[in-house]
Amino acid sequence: MNLVVQKYGGSSLASAEAIKNIAKKIKFKIDKGEKIVCVVSAMGETTDNLINLALNITDNPDSRELDLLLSTGELVSSTLLTIALRSMDIKAISLTGTQAGIFTNKSHGNAKILSIDSSRIWDELNRNKVVVIAGFQGFNDSMDITTLGRGGSDTTAVAIAAELNADICEIYTDVDGIFTANPKYVPNATKLDSVEYEEMLELASLGAKMHPRSIELGLVYKMPILVASSVNDVPGTMITQGDNKLSNKTVGEVRNRVRGIATDENISRITIHGLNNIPGTATKIFEPLSLADISVDVIVQNSGNDGQTNISFTIKDSELTKTKTIMEKICSHIDNASFTYDTGLSKISIVGTGMQDAPGYATQMFKSLSDANINIEMITTSEIRITCIIKQENTGEAARILHSSFDLD
Amino acid sequence: MNLVVQKYGGSSLASAEAIKNIAKKIKFKIDKGEKIVCVVSAMGETTDNLINLALNITDNPDSRELDLLLSTGELVSSTLLTIALRSMDIKAISLTGTQAGIFTNKSHGNAKILSIDSSRIWDELNRNKVVVIAGFQGFNDSMDITTLGRGGSDTTAVAIAAELNADICEIYTDVDGIFTANPKYVPNATKLDSVEYEEMLELASLGAKMHPRSIELGLVYKMPILVASSVNDVPGTMITQGDNKLSNKTVGEVRNRVRGIATDENISRITIHGLNNIPGTATKIFEPLSLADISVDVIVQNSGNDGQTNISFTIKDSELTKTKTIMEKICSHIDNASFTYDTGLSKISIVGTGMQDAPGYATQMFKSLSDANINIEMITTSEIRITCIIKQENTGEAARILHSSFDLD
Repeated sequence: MNLVVQKYGGSSLASAEAIKNIAKKIKFKIDKGEKIVCVVSAMGETTDNLINLALNITDNPDSRELDLLLSTGELVSSTLLTIALRSMDIKAISLTGTQAGIFTNKSHGNAKILSIDSSRIWDELNRNKVVVIAGFQGFNDSMDITTLGRGGSDTTAVAIAAELNADICEIYTDVDGIFTANPKYVPNATKLDSVEYEEMLELASLGAKMHPRSIELGLVYKMPILVASSVNDVPGTMITQGDNKLSNKTVGEVRNRVRGIATDENISRITIHGLNNIPGTATKIFEPLSLADISVDVIVQNSGNDGQTNISFTIKDSELTKTKTIMEKICSHIDNASFTYDTGLSKISIVGTGMQDAPGYATQMFKSLSDANINIEMITTSEIRITCIIKQENTGEAARILHSSFDLD
Repeated sequence: MNLVVQKYGGSSLASAEAIKNIAKKIKFKIDKGEKIVCVVSAMGETTDNLINLALNITDNPDSRELDLLLSTGELVSSTLLTIALRSMDIKAISLTGTQAGIFTNKSHGNAKILSIDSSRIWDELNRNKVVVIAGFQGFNDSMDITTLGRGGSDTTAVAIAAELNADICEIYTDVDGIFTANPKYVPNATKLDSVEYEEMLELASLGAKMHPRSIELGLVYKMPILVASSVNDVPGTMITQGDNKLSNKTVGEVRNRVRGIATDENISRITIHGLNNIPGTATKIFEPLSLADISVDVIVQNSGNDGQTNISFTIKDSELTKTKTIMEKICSHIDNASFTYDTGLSKISIVGTGMQDAPGYATQMFKSLSDANINIEMITTSEIRITCIIKQENTGEAARILHSSFDLD
């Protein structure tokens, strides 16, 4: 008998009608003899509404309290789905993150799952129940509720699938799967039948916005993850550990490829000038930022011959105000340092495991962009990704150009 | 240092503004050096909205799931109040019913508190924190969430006050206290300065709709309960164990009194005819009703000399449809039995601990009503209460007549 862990996103559960439809889908699987564990997100806009309730009281709500507040969204959707299943005479029970044994560290708002005590889940599965688990949440060693960060229900689902040694983890969402580029920018972006974990980590923003940690967990535990539509009955995208059918193809066919174009908007860049290029400089800048919980993305450092260096990094636009305040403090403690900033930028990347040993991808990317007169503000690379920071207004054109240039059309 | 348990109702917490006002009231107490434990209900109409979410899915939602669903309302209000307190630099922490150690029986939807493990509450109090506890909820020996029934936050507050041996339990609500009658019917109803636990049990519907079990707990643990307005700064009503100042008054002054007129609307009556007056008849009727979770209020049985008996009982109008279905089944299993029903009735009572040994109260009540040409459909009495069932359209007139007749004006 197959054991399947499914995850349903908020848009799939936005109304009583939608919830009943999901219950019918689950019944279809049950009738085929599968055992089902369901992980659910909060209904529709619930999480945003709860955040706004807190922001109406103060600009800076306490993170422990905010976690308990936000965790209620998934309790509501998990009980409603269970009520719907039971009304169809399907045995079912909802479990909170705590009841499901999801033990995390103390990091409120961005907690990491440390372990899962799955005894209650197994008890209920052995009573032939569908187990509906509130996603996004766990508990820490103070018995306080923690949350895993936006999109954390994906991680709940993959972690539980790994712990239960499930046959597959199915992520149902409002898109049909993972695309070669964001269809908003590239109309002829195509859906991928399968993608490797490492590629998916880099592609996370393509169509299905998946929680990065869920992919990492899938990679570590080799858990097959299906990303598919909760509405349209079409095959989704399977995230797995590379192509086992390598022998059927030439190595060149498999490796020399860009799998997709990833885009990420609403980015700001901070550049610090006049730094002495001595050990400890980067720590002086990034330690205060991480203490303030500001998530820094791309970091680039350039040094000249004069012993001076500039450091640039990117953040979300929404964190610019907070970051500027902290940067003023930092620069006041470093002789001659000053900072400038740009906003309204975006990040565009080409991604593929085939790129690491093959020269020419970077050149082709830079040339394609410059041919279209798109200026590159920053460049970084990883083993399977080349990223350029460009002006946000150029995002769509750049995505279409690269999609075509790398034969993804 | 005084230890005070306060309870705030849903209307006192209905908006961000209201929550901030409550936080200011708490700050005022803290600044006076009091230690505060706060129990909160769900904001405004939250509980009704959550019930409607479930009813949109099925007419008969599972009670375990409904409990977990409804418990989220108090989690939201407790975290928001804590966020408000912390934004005013007051140390505070919210606790769920489970975290507060409120252990109940398994009776979902109407659970009873069996014990309270107050160790976490004390830990937080000893860290000089205001402890904000989600009312209305606890957990059972399956680690499942239970709820205590509508209004159950009152009971949470009194139970915690008793467990902590607090100096007082203060119930803040949207009325100024307990009145001699419902001001909706009796414009010159007056607020009582104090009332005894036993009287309050019977008066529960006068102005402040308190959860009956909270009064029982107050009685058992001799916990002084103040019922007062969360908005108007006027003295409320103190519920205590009788008048300790008895020596200041003559016995007659203290005892010979009706304390108030209680009214309860939207009542239906079922009468079963043609029953044989033999042991077990009542069980055959009331066991199926209690299994169906129908709350039966007044029960009256009359027997003639012919070995036949009629039984009448009252229920809430809202349960009439369900009750009729069950009654049809019951009567089909008892030879010659049939039932009739009336709807649109109300219950009116005179209440006072002084009544039990004093004849004449019943006569005065029946005479006052008949003088006003108000027909009495049923009568029951307890030690400190005489109740008549009358037509609902007569409720206001009957309340005014009795209020005046018993010198409460």
